[in-house]
Amino acid sequence: MSMFIDRDPLLLTPGPLTTTLRTKQAMLHDWGSWDAAFNRMTGDVCRQLVDIAHGADTHVCVPLQGSGTFSVEAALGTLVPRNGKVLVPNNGAYCARILKILGYLGRSAVELRFAEDQPADPAAIEVALAADPSITHVAQVHCETGTGILNPLADIADAVARQGRELIVDAMSSFGAIDIDLRTTPITALVAASGKCLEGVPGMAFVIARKTALEAAAGNCHSLAMDLHDQWAYMQKTTQWRFTPPTHVVVALHSALEQYAEEGGLPARHARYAANCRALVDGMAGLGLRPFLAPAHQAPIIVTFHAPGSSSYDFQAFYQAVRARGFILYPGKLTEVDTFRVGCIGALTPLDMQKVVDAVGATLRDMKVAVGN
Amino acid sequence: MSMFIDRDPLLLTPGPLTTTLRTKQAMLHDWGSWDAAFNRMTGDVCRQLVDIAHGADTHVCVPLQGSGTFSVEAALGTLVPRNGKVLVPNNGAYCARILKILGYLGRSAVELRFAEDQPADPAAIEVALAADPSITHVAQVHCETGTGILNPLADIADAVARQGRELIVDAMSSFGAIDIDLRTTPITALVAASGKCLEGVPGMAFVIARKTALEAAAGNCHSLAMDLHDQWAYMQKTTQWRFTPPTHVVVALHSALEQYAEEGGLPARHARYAANCRALVDGMAGLGLRPFLAPAHQAPIIVTFHAPGSSSYDFQAFYQAVRARGFILYPGKLTEVDTFRVGCIGALTPLDMQKVVDAVGATLRDMKVAVGN
Repeated sequence: MSMFIDRDPLLLTPGPLTTTLRTKQAMLHDWGSWDAAFNRMTGDVCRQLVDIAHGADTHVCVPLQGSGTFSVEAALGTLVPRNGKVLVPNNGAYCARILKILGYLGRSAVELRFAEDQPADPAAIEVALAADPSITHVAQVHCETGTGILNPLADIADAVARQGRELIVDAMSSFGAIDIDLRTTPITALVAASGKCLEGVPGMAFVIARKTALEAAAGNCHSLAMDLHDQWAYMQKTTQWRFTPPTHVVVALHSALEQYAEEGGLPARHARYAANCRALVDGMAGLGLRPFLAPAHQAPIIVTFHAPGSSSYDFQAFYQAVRARGFILYPGKLTEVDTFRVGCIGALTPLDMQKVVDAVGATLRDMKVAVGN
Repeated sequence: MSMFIDRDPLLLTPGPLTTTLRTKQAMLHDWGSWDAAFNRMTGDVCRQLVDIAHGADTHVCVPLQGSGTFSVEAALGTLVPRNGKVLVPNNGAYCARILKILGYLGRSAVELRFAEDQPADPAAIEVALAADPSITHVAQVHCETGTGILNPLADIADAVARQGRELIVDAMSSFGAIDIDLRTTPITALVAASGKCLEGVPGMAFVIARKTALEAAAGNCHSLAMDLHDQWAYMQKTTQWRFTPPTHVVVALHSALEQYAEEGGLPARHARYAANCRALVDGMAGLGLRPFLAPAHQAPIIVTFHAPGSSSYDFQAFYQAVRARGFILYPGKLTEVDTFRVGCIGALTPLDMQKVVDAVGATLRDMKVAVGN
């Protein structure tokens, strides 16, 4: 007889996340992609996404099929001219991915390295821009999911604006939970996805772009599928997606946004995730497990923990045993330090986080790894 | 009181389609993209897709996030070297889209025009190849969804092989319903999607590529997101998708493939669609509505009908009235002839097609458009 019950494990990951049953049940219908009823949903979703970033006066939302990385590439390929040059402050894996994309696109890139446990420094970014007038854009990750670090976006945006450059932000794991106010923060484009803090399912992402920048971007893009200008122009004309949309993913996001508003919007979402993060970090501290980041730099999105320093610890065995208890963790993404990650986002509460801590504690005790209490 | 009942309309379109409730219910669970349970599903799906095309000895399946067009672009961008040259036999909108993609990618292209109501001619393709040894690839649409015409793929493949060139096939709307045998038909890559004849939901597509061609394709691609070689190499190493997969779409396809096998695989799927097509064409003939294509060229996928030649006919009003009766049709895609389209694919039976015909007939009578009986 198994000691574990048969139910879906909770996902303590940076996405795909655990979503509500209501969000998933929205997918129990089929929609025609040419039909007005579906395209009204797309329009509703786009308006709500722009509103979350307070961008209705200046920005437009362009949704795109695929994962978040597809939309990051689409934003870079569409908004950076072929002779543009991009500064990439790099303190983690998703910053490095931007550099990789720019290499594929043949756009000039300048890397500005920071330690993985240190936020990108607005002053250093400003110095780099002042030193190289040929840099046209900065591509900044807001919350670097590789570690969970929060970069100081508003200060970086001000520095970039003072130097008269454009700013493209990968807000994949922060959008909807950490406020970004486009009325006061000068940002050319924000990129995020359905399956992160909005708690939809994965399969589409979106770029919230300054309308004037998007209008000026015709002909830049290296790819038909990723040409955000073409996608936007077609949607303006027809209300439809250019190519078959992931209809079920769109209606799930529509439902998730209804629930987001009902919960109380961004302040409530942020508060729940912050409470999740506190419950997690406090509970893990009780087991002697320390976060990789200093508390001041930790976003309430995903927490990187140092692996237990015991020879009887092994991540695969640990992962499987915690999974058998109903919780799916995430591996670390650091090359030089042995870590694992635990997400705070999704349809989860502080009570769930306490259960995760209990499962981790029980697992470590089973593995004969010394724990705090 | 409405005379119409409140239920989801049936989709008579080329996709997204009406799917079974079982397929949609597969999406009522969340899956971790790093977790082995999910990645086994991806592996299962890929193996089954290769088997449908009888390619297990020679080909591999690379799934990709996004719509079918994303995978067409990915196949062209990954498999055609930067100095390659592509012949595109063009008899419709999706052939024209391939030319547009090649323009974006900066790959040389040669268009070979055919009339929209005529299949691509293998002999003409062979002559064009013989005349231009610098052509490296042919990009052929199998069933051109713009009209519903079936191109003679096996004969085209033989002609291309005789000339020693590579063949990339957009099999979007035929894969799974019209047999393509990779053991006997020389094809470098077949592209198709989740939401067509396999009756999954939209949100992912896939390329079934000859393994040796894919292995030789490192470094070709213009895009990180669309680099099929990189996606495949990463999957081989980790079993995981490189970037967040559309997990719910993948599990829906997994369920749809189970149902495909239970129905009897390709022969049964083809037989049902052929019966749908016959019921549709025969029924519409009774209303005096004629298909655009000659019967010999009509694939049992989607039928283009001439619009009624009456001044009281208007597509938008017709569409809305048929929709109110529970059926979503599709607009025509021809510029010079007024048409509309009706799909034969999805979780539909000949009885459903008869109901569509009844709804079209009743609508035309309401619109005072003369019908056959």
